[in-house]
Amino acid sequence: MNIHDYMLTMGSQARACARTLARATTQVKNHALSVMAETLEQSQASLLEANARDLDQCVKNGLSNAMLDRLTLNASRIASMVEGLRQIATLPDPIGERTALVRRPSGLEIGRMRVPLGVIGIIYESRPNVTADAAGLCLKAGNATILRGGSEAFHSNQAIAACIRKALVAVGLHADAIQLVATTDREAVGELLRMNQYVDVIIPRGGKSLVERVTNEARVPVIKHLDGICHVYIDEDADLEKAVQIAFNAKTQRYGTCNTMETLLVAEAIAPRILPRLAALYLEKGVELRGCPATRALLSDVPVVPATAEDWDTEYLAPILSIRIVDGLEAAMDHIALHGSAHTDAICTENADHASRFLSEVDSSSVMVNASTRLADGFEYGLGAEIGISTDKFHARGPVGLEGLTSQKFIVLGDGHLRT
Amino acid sequence: MNIHDYMLTMGSQARACARTLARATTQVKNHALSVMAETLEQSQASLLEANARDLDQCVKNGLSNAMLDRLTLNASRIASMVEGLRQIATLPDPIGERTALVRRPSGLEIGRMRVPLGVIGIIYESRPNVTADAAGLCLKAGNATILRGGSEAFHSNQAIAACIRKALVAVGLHADAIQLVATTDREAVGELLRMNQYVDVIIPRGGKSLVERVTNEARVPVIKHLDGICHVYIDEDADLEKAVQIAFNAKTQRYGTCNTMETLLVAEAIAPRILPRLAALYLEKGVELRGCPATRALLSDVPVVPATAEDWDTEYLAPILSIRIVDGLEAAMDHIALHGSAHTDAICTENADHASRFLSEVDSSSVMVNASTRLADGFEYGLGAEIGISTDKFHARGPVGLEGLTSQKFIVLGDGHLRT
Repeated sequence: MNIHDYMLTMGSQARACARTLARATTQVKNHALSVMAETLEQSQASLLEANARDLDQCVKNGLSNAMLDRLTLNASRIASMVEGLRQIATLPDPIGERTALVRRPSGLEIGRMRVPLGVIGIIYESRPNVTADAAGLCLKAGNATILRGGSEAFHSNQAIAACIRKALVAVGLHADAIQLVATTDREAVGELLRMNQYVDVIIPRGGKSLVERVTNEARVPVIKHLDGICHVYIDEDADLEKAVQIAFNAKTQRYGTCNTMETLLVAEAIAPRILPRLAALYLEKGVELRGCPATRALLSDVPVVPATAEDWDTEYLAPILSIRIVDGLEAAMDHIALHGSAHTDAICTENADHASRFLSEVDSSSVMVNASTRLADGFEYGLGAEIGISTDKFHARGPVGLEGLTSQKFIVLGDGHLRT
Repeated sequence: MNIHDYMLTMGSQARACARTLARATTQVKNHALSVMAETLEQSQASLLEANARDLDQCVKNGLSNAMLDRLTLNASRIASMVEGLRQIATLPDPIGERTALVRRPSGLEIGRMRVPLGVIGIIYESRPNVTADAAGLCLKAGNATILRGGSEAFHSNQAIAACIRKALVAVGLHADAIQLVATTDREAVGELLRMNQYVDVIIPRGGKSLVERVTNEARVPVIKHLDGICHVYIDEDADLEKAVQIAFNAKTQRYGTCNTMETLLVAEAIAPRILPRLAALYLEKGVELRGCPATRALLSDVPVVPATAEDWDTEYLAPILSIRIVDGLEAAMDHIALHGSAHTDAICTENADHASRFLSEVDSSSVMVNASTRLADGFEYGLGAEIGISTDKFHARGPVGLEGLTSQKFIVLGDGHLRT
């Protein structure tokens, strides 16, 4: 079968399963999740064997150590994949939730009911655990899933998917409720992105080039996260102690994550009291500093590279921080509007009016007061799990949990009501 | 300036205005709406003059009477445009609404705040009133708007937009919060659909070919309505009187609307008691009937054309109805899943279990019990106004009011909270 027909078949199978899944009870879905967990647990040997084949190939292909690390399965990683599925089973089921019915003057009653999106396509890169995590979340929200993992994790993903599908059948669901694309041909991705008759949403999980390809080619709605150029603004009314801790944590707790601060904005009035202390902490930790002229003048006794125009628009994902001294709140919000990526931005202030303006006016998926940007995360927010973070404003915004994998339809109860 | 640069300039102006509009108070927005209404009211002469130029041109071009009717402005149509804006001013402002904050074990407080989408592009066809309606709704939800009307209504739209922009300036807002594309070059639409750096969502309002073009070319999310193949299913446990009224109203109250029933499904057990009576009513009203073999056998004494496979997938938008006799609920839902367009489907039944299954399992933007599909409408649902109906499952689904023109961001309140 050619790739086009192969993908269409997969799409039509997914669509057929979506109808059954939409009416699966919470009990059946949770049972499936727990049997999935059990099957993975019992298949550790075959999972490790499949993973070893992938690793061998990647070593031969000269992949980086970071890449090999992301790809590697071991007992503890399998255990956390298993634990993840069991946690999803404990989450409340969003499907079927109804809003209160509103009675119109005519007596017609109107409400909304939460329902699955239908068929979700997940396109991801090297980490094989995504196969289980994403499939589990989509299943709990009543959706059929088509998974397309990275070619370097081909055998690992196949082995994980085999366990999952076996578990579905064991609880009386159809195996095709979760399908994994069994070819590394890149054209399969193109087909998946264009099958809007079968696929309701695509979620890309991976680096910027993957997300950009998906965004450019998709004829299907996409839940995506593109850039994470996050800011912390230290207001003139900040508590010095909290601000130092937050600005340090937001940059250094992890460098490669999307919610890591990339640019620090500091109000002119407080800069002399806080920047020298912060700079010393960053430099001690090995963070390269790039500053505006005022920052460099203030920190003239320590190494601060001049920040270029490009720096303000750069997501370093590395131990590099750009620093800009601004007049105050207004200038900080102007900077964020111009250079931010609408991901996560925080203000450190004890001034309630400044906090409230920052919350209202900064147009990012998460806006924070006196908290580290690193806290922008589905688990931290209590969503229970996270399929990704959306930097779009459409549908789901910010960390996306089960609710982002659902839709709401109108339900209308009449008693012979007509349009007149 | 070429079209590309012209549209980019328009986009960047809209984006700049969006930030100001997002923080405009309810009072300012309502004041703008009321001055917009007043200005249109006082400009009746110039609106009619501009409209006459459009009508002249269209008569010369030999446009159909239906088209001319849609294009025509007169005192009563201007009055209802004015009234529409005043009604939007009375609607509650969704912007700034906060959900209750949830306190996490760490003490971090998480909530959501409703905010505008940003910049909305509206692409529409001949009715010039859309210029005022759409601009008013987008403004109330705090969004900047780029309007692109049909070329046949060019002068009418320009005249309406001039009034609206004058009103914006009069209340201290920027005129570019609402912009109308001042060229009939179709390439302007292409540019608008691709400006995802400036435009947050596109709403096409018009016929299927417009919506299809928009869907195929857009690099920006689209809120759209494609087909309206709506069903009424008369269950064996239906109340005969209600079912007759609903099935008749759903087809004949208006033929050309998206929520008009196109296919009637009738349970075998009740068909002999209801179909002959309904058929007589339809035929008396001049509705052509197309039936499945069982329908034709039952209605052998009246003219019923044989329904072809194509009929079940056709939105007639005309006095034609396809009728199919089905085994019962399950078969009706199978038919709707296969042939429906996920717009609006209704069941007539007094059986609570059947009603509940239909509500849960039929995957359409509106599902109804004992009500006419013609009631699927933002005003009937109490949304206060409607920018359109979405048959997508993403973001807004069903009739779209002010809330569909907004997004929710996370707000996070800490007291020095860090990620550990």
